[in-house]
Amino acid sequence: MKVSEIGEFGLIKLLSEVILRRRSASVAKNEYGMVVDIGDDASAWRSNKSLTIATIDTLVQGVHFTSEISWRELGWKTLAVNLSDIAAMGGLPRNALVSLSLPADTEVDDVIQLYEGMEDIATEFGVNIVGGNVTSAPVVVITLTLVGEGTNGVLLTRSRAAPQELIVVTGYLGTSAAGQKMLSQHLQIEPQKAELLRKAHFLPQPRVAEGQVLLDCGVRCAIDVSDGLLADVGHICESSRVSARIRADLIPIHPVVKEFFGAEALELALGGGEDYELVFAATEDIVTAVKERVGCMVTVIGRFSSIGATKEEQSGMVFLVNEDGENLEWKMRGWEHF
Amino acid sequence: MKVSEIGEFGLIKLLSEVILRRRSASVAKNEYGMVVDIGDDASAWRSNKSLTIATIDTLVQGVHFTSEISWRELGWKTLAVNLSDIAAMGGLPRNALVSLSLPADTEVDDVIQLYEGMEDIATEFGVNIVGGNVTSAPVVVITLTLVGEGTNGVLLTRSRAAPQELIVVTGYLGTSAAGQKMLSQHLQIEPQKAELLRKAHFLPQPRVAEGQVLLDCGVRCAIDVSDGLLADVGHICESSRVSARIRADLIPIHPVVKEFFGAEALELALGGGEDYELVFAATEDIVTAVKERVGCMVTVIGRFSSIGATKEEQSGMVFLVNEDGENLEWKMRGWEHF
Repeated sequence: MKVSEIGEFGLIKLLSEVILRRRSASVAKNEYGMVVDIGDDASAWRSNKSLTIATIDTLVQGVHFTSEISWRELGWKTLAVNLSDIAAMGGLPRNALVSLSLPADTEVDDVIQLYEGMEDIATEFGVNIVGGNVTSAPVVVITLTLVGEGTNGVLLTRSRAAPQELIVVTGYLGTSAAGQKMLSQHLQIEPQKAELLRKAHFLPQPRVAEGQVLLDCGVRCAIDVSDGLLADVGHICESSRVSARIRADLIPIHPVVKEFFGAEALELALGGGEDYELVFAATEDIVTAVKERVGCMVTVIGRFSSIGATKEEQSGMVFLVNEDGENLEWKMRGWEHF
Repeated sequence: MKVSEIGEFGLIKLLSEVILRRRSASVAKNEYGMVVDIGDDASAWRSNKSLTIATIDTLVQGVHFTSEISWRELGWKTLAVNLSDIAAMGGLPRNALVSLSLPADTEVDDVIQLYEGMEDIATEFGVNIVGGNVTSAPVVVITLTLVGEGTNGVLLTRSRAAPQELIVVTGYLGTSAAGQKMLSQHLQIEPQKAELLRKAHFLPQPRVAEGQVLLDCGVRCAIDVSDGLLADVGHICESSRVSARIRADLIPIHPVVKEFFGAEALELALGGGEDYELVFAATEDIVTAVKERVGCMVTVIGRFSSIGATKEEQSGMVFLVNEDGENLEWKMRGWEHF
């Protein structure tokens, strides 16, 4: 069987099984103190009273990016996606390690621009690039590991959504996917608006400070929107053993995206991914508290419910509904490799 | 200018400059407590009284490995090279994150074998695979980050060799390169001996316990032999601002390598790399203490000296000498990408 036949998430599930089956043998030698294990946005463990959070992400030329992105933007985005994983755990990002695989004919100036871009965002978020590795390869592959720490020993995870909690999202959804579409289809959009879409796609702003506020307000369950809203809420449902009802009419979509993509805007918002906004589970009181403290838009878009409450809610599903609560047919899925 | 024109080490030097030039701006936001920075085997930082060590390494299909290695061996080797970096710092390896880039037609069973191989060595060294990432790519690229901790707050670094200290190495050198040569040139060697060479190349044994003993005996300067003995001793010389004289006649070479590679055996030992043995700087008393406590062979192969002591020793050079101390001509260099 090829990996294309079981897909990215199928493969991850199989590999997790290998690891967890073998885990017991090595645990005897290593008191890991795992707090968050395989399957969340990042991993976390406790040692010597400190809570370490670590995440790894890879961008592959031709898969994650094309020549449309500048090297400097690529540097920014590489660190941004990792920052978003730490943000989704409510962690404080600290130190980064970078592994660079490059064709031999890559321009040195381009690589320097890549690092300048990483330093742009590293500076903004107080991150230190502390080490790395350089190898040759047929295509550009950039892998970044970001190590951070938990504050006050608490974390946001995917597995703590409770039935009846609200589904809440920061910022707008679909703007990054709209930017990608504009670039790949060479759509003509007026410069200022085009720049907004391009930035959303190439220079995402990870919600690190917002993750801290969520924790502080009592939120315990979050994920970042990387695969796409429906897919990512699906990850929460699977880990938390709940179902979700998302109101299509409440999805926050930027006016520029509505203007240029019309009916397609909702598709981009639900399935596009790479928004790097945070989706979280919270009670109404907590949502009110969060809204008072964060600088960005915070929108309630639906509600979690218990599995098994109705016949159709048996497998932690995500339902898209209209304002009357009626199910809308929805077939699009988020991004999956292979 | 292409990266092939300045080479791996030239590129690393340039990128380090970008990072260090920009560092001051972000330090204000982040009290990193860096202990070992860019340019050593791994990075190390202190937070909340614990000393964290982290390293990242990538293996690229067609560059670092070919179809001669089995997927299970590849899994072993991927973690082994990272363990060796932690060993060279005298650290205790703890948690690993794996990023896997795979062509869509990769066999699922092969990927499972890869993870079984990683778990084989993880179990042996008490390491926990705690997270990862899977993406599609045109060739197999495996990046692994290993996070460990320092014991008693001390570390082995490249920068602490002192003039007059002995140059000492664990185990044999050149066995891995001999294995690679045997495989690539399809040399016919009797099965038991062929297996020894194959294992040295595909299933290296990182010197984690030995690194601990070195620290405990008072050693403060070490590196692992990944690029090749001369190149790696060169890294120590550069960081420590010393020169080195290595006695060609003292290099420990396995009898099987001598038997099959004759005069070429010394070349393999000096330039071959991927031995993952430790080279360290120590006084005679410390060498005696180390020999009593480690389970492997420990060989004195030369001596460090101060830069500027003679006219030719001005740039932290590595000299290969005979038993009378006369310079031998040596042009071969260690492995360098691009």
